[in-house]
Amino acid sequence: MYFQMLGQFKKHLGQLDKWLEAAARFAEAKKFDSAVWLGTRLAPDQFPFSRQVQAVCDTAKLTASRLTGKEAPKNEDNEKTIEELRARIASTLAYLDTFSAADFEQAAKREITQPRWEGKKMTGANYFLEHAVPNFYFHITTAYAILRSNGVDVGKRDFLGPLTFEAT
Amino acid sequence: MYFQMLGQFKKHLGQLDKWLEAAARFAEAKKFDSAVWLGTRLAPDQFPFSRQVQAVCDTAKLTASRLTGKEAPKNEDNEKTIEELRARIASTLAYLDTFSAADFEQAAKREITQPRWEGKKMTGANYFLEHAVPNFYFHITTAYAILRSNGVDVGKRDFLGPLTFEAT
Repeated sequence: MYFQMLGQFKKHLGQLDKWLEAAARFAEAKKFDSAVWLGTRLAPDQFPFSRQVQAVCDTAKLTASRLTGKEAPKNEDNEKTIEELRARIASTLAYLDTFSAADFEQAAKREITQPRWEGKKMTGANYFLEHAVPNFYFHITTAYAILRSNGVDVGKRDFLGPLTFEAT
Repeated sequence: MYFQMLGQFKKHLGQLDKWLEAAARFAEAKKFDSAVWLGTRLAPDQFPFSRQVQAVCDTAKLTASRLTGKEAPKNEDNEKTIEELRARIASTLAYLDTFSAADFEQAAKREITQPRWEGKKMTGANYFLEHAVPNFYFHITTAYAILRSNGVDVGKRDFLGPLTFEAT
């Protein structure tokens, strides 16, 4: 399940990249600087679009890293343009491509912690179910909502991406 | 994993119920009819708050129903107040409580379809990963975003709910 969900995260990151393309085209058509998107928010005290995209990427990166015990590459979180956000997605996808199903064999029982938890720990299984998956979807849906609420032509199918139907 | 995710869905439905309480209190403090929330949207051509909450409930209900082959109760989708939406959540939780882990033994290989797919089918495993989980999180995050963007005091912890930390 862990490795399968990683594949699902990769599909969603590919979809997110397409929304960024659509956001850039929208800016071009409306003649505004596409970098405006990076500071756009749903609420004045919520993270802006750039931070939502960074959080999607980091959640995917850290889910893989923490559940396998492998060190994750650092990111500076200094993206200033849509192109730089797309490069962040590409580098996240390249990192996720380095994992195999076998890397996750001990995932469920691994002890996971992070600075914000002040020494507290979750099992890998609980971290995955209660923290990693909800956070990934929270940030990618919020990124989608920022574009959607501002007129970019994205819909539910763009959110889900292609589905695997059975051969008939 | 299927049954564990159902438990996670239940936790999120409990959190959603708390946001509805907060939305009702917000309306009372600001002296507007709390039923206004049900028609509130992020975009004029996206489903309103009421439909997002119904979709969260239906996705949880249908995930359990389809993956176990049990018939799901019908819903009229005619909720007109916050209290009625809260009752919808309560009835969904009561339905989810009728399932046990054993009910999901054949889930991965079950053939899943729905009217919108025009005869196409997904395996239970793919339906769960590619459709059920993303849809559940899409709609609950959108419901959250509608309240959050309109000033209701909910934050990321309210989204995640309590986490299962290890005993130290």
